[in-house]
Amino acid sequence: MLVHAYGAHAGDQPLESLQIERRAPGAHDVQIRIAYCGICHSDLHQVRAEWAGTQFPCVPGHEIVGEVVAVGEHVKNFKAGDLVGIGCIVDSCRHCDECADGLENYCDHMVGTYNSKTDDKPGWTMGGYSEQIVVNERYVLRIQHPKEQLAAVAPLLCAGITTYSPLRHWGAGPGKKIGIVGIGGLGHMGIKLAHAMGAHVVAFTTSESKRMAAKELGADEVVVSRNQAEMAAHAQSFDFILNTVAAPHDLDAFLQLLKRDGTMSLVGAPATPHPSPQVFNLIMKRRSLAGSLIGGIPETQEMLDFCAKHGITADIELVRADQINDSYERMLKGDVKYRFVIDNASLNAA
Amino acid sequence: MLVHAYGAHAGDQPLESLQIERRAPGAHDVQIRIAYCGICHSDLHQVRAEWAGTQFPCVPGHEIVGEVVAVGEHVKNFKAGDLVGIGCIVDSCRHCDECADGLENYCDHMVGTYNSKTDDKPGWTMGGYSEQIVVNERYVLRIQHPKEQLAAVAPLLCAGITTYSPLRHWGAGPGKKIGIVGIGGLGHMGIKLAHAMGAHVVAFTTSESKRMAAKELGADEVVVSRNQAEMAAHAQSFDFILNTVAAPHDLDAFLQLLKRDGTMSLVGAPATPHPSPQVFNLIMKRRSLAGSLIGGIPETQEMLDFCAKHGITADIELVRADQINDSYERMLKGDVKYRFVIDNASLNAA
Repeated sequence: MLVHAYGAHAGDQPLESLQIERRAPGAHDVQIRIAYCGICHSDLHQVRAEWAGTQFPCVPGHEIVGEVVAVGEHVKNFKAGDLVGIGCIVDSCRHCDECADGLENYCDHMVGTYNSKTDDKPGWTMGGYSEQIVVNERYVLRIQHPKEQLAAVAPLLCAGITTYSPLRHWGAGPGKKIGIVGIGGLGHMGIKLAHAMGAHVVAFTTSESKRMAAKELGADEVVVSRNQAEMAAHAQSFDFILNTVAAPHDLDAFLQLLKRDGTMSLVGAPATPHPSPQVFNLIMKRRSLAGSLIGGIPETQEMLDFCAKHGITADIELVRADQINDSYERMLKGDVKYRFVIDNASLNAA
Repeated sequence: MLVHAYGAHAGDQPLESLQIERRAPGAHDVQIRIAYCGICHSDLHQVRAEWAGTQFPCVPGHEIVGEVVAVGEHVKNFKAGDLVGIGCIVDSCRHCDECADGLENYCDHMVGTYNSKTDDKPGWTMGGYSEQIVVNERYVLRIQHPKEQLAAVAPLLCAGITTYSPLRHWGAGPGKKIGIVGIGGLGHMGIKLAHAMGAHVVAFTTSESKRMAAKELGADEVVVSRNQAEMAAHAQSFDFILNTVAAPHDLDAFLQLLKRDGTMSLVGAPATPHPSPQVFNLIMKRRSLAGSLIGGIPETQEMLDFCAKHGITADIELVRADQINDSYERMLKGDVKYRFVIDNASLNAA
């Protein structure tokens, strides 16, 4: 079937209204009418061909929420009318160690929600800036939030799980001092989640103006990272630091804040490398510099359930399809608190 | 008391014979006649003032083995005639979390065996290139190897524990695939220890000529790291890589060989930074780049006992005091298999 979507025909062209083909649901598929889709910075990188290998036309979007409209004959866990989500993953090999461990995000054959190879027409996946999507039930998440929160749930599917997974993996919880570097789409979720996990949360920002906002999100303390005295006061005190900043920056300033055996995990990949961290800062306290990529399907469900239980959603600004290009420009200027979400009902009108 | 030693009066001068003061043993002290002392690359960096803060005269040496000649009145665990060792640590604060956890190596007030502040004359510690040393019993290690192996035990006190500690910490053992990068003083110990722990050991070297030697040390496989096809065959397969190379090099080539959740730990700090590792290589498989610094006192004892049980010593070349300067030059050229050890009886004659 043909559905309305919003995408680009080339990296240097704006996104525009277009139509794309969705497959008829197979026996294990779930057909979803997309209600809302978050705008992730990755969408911009891919659709503007800043990342290699973009196939055009490109329809981005991997923070998808909506309602089931039909299911294949073998689908047992979902039925029409269910509220569901799709994140960054729509398929994987299903038999490697990673898939067996529910960490499909680390599967070598993970199929991304857009711009990944698929048997569907036209040969690569098309994302959530579209009216409908059809996905194998294994990769469909259940949403237990109240329906009126649905738009604000969308960013949990990428920004939420990308921060939840490392926070859980590295043990954020009561008695732990956790840093969150950067207060944007990812960072604002990191603060909310770490706070809900019971950790003592310190937010790091380069801008004095975000101090109050970070406290309101749940930070126990806020440090302006350009203030060396403020930074020094936290030396060797963190169990874990989640660094959400993708722009190249001085990692040593944060590594020095870790306790012995502490870890800083990066969740953003800069276009050009960070200045090389000093080995000395790793050796002297047996610290680790790590990375983390979104999260697996079971832990994404766990995250959604955790958020529903704790009343956590993203802070969003709802936009129409014809505002997507403008939203990209505003995102580049940091002019969003903290995530744009598309009202997909506007795709038809666009 | 005055004892013979070998040290330098300035960074640009060779080491020469000199006399230093040792304190009379206090109630908790052990007085040791040093039989042998290994030559560590750190000795050279410090005595040549390549590292900041060298106090002169400087007497290096922290791979010390010898025999107890006297003990203070409150010393219960050692008596005259015991074979003992002193590593890199001769004191620490004794009350921080690190000291409480037996990780004195990470204590902020750790007192190094040479060039650290002390109340003893002349105000900084003097190391093992000397006839005797007096150390608080807490920092004295028991040696259970046969006496005739004593010279080859000396390097265990730094090279041994520096590799043993991270191998244990990151779980080297049966069923684990462990890489050892660099086959020098540290690396040759890493291979022996990881092999004895029951791991599958892969040694990495830049030189084809070391292939056979690495196998003899206990490596199950040897990879010449300049051979890209050999490297690619091990992609995503290692649980842990111990990187002993202090010269700046491409860390990404090794990070790519780690499995999901694998760690590479660095134990050498380069004078200039390594090329900045690609964040992508950390993120894609949740890998970690870590560091590790020698080891604590209890684990150093554990390592010595492990080595005695498994018949492990270092491969050494015994030298006289008057060969130390020459040995430094040979060490810089990599012309040693794999550790020089000083016969301290020659200090008197020098």
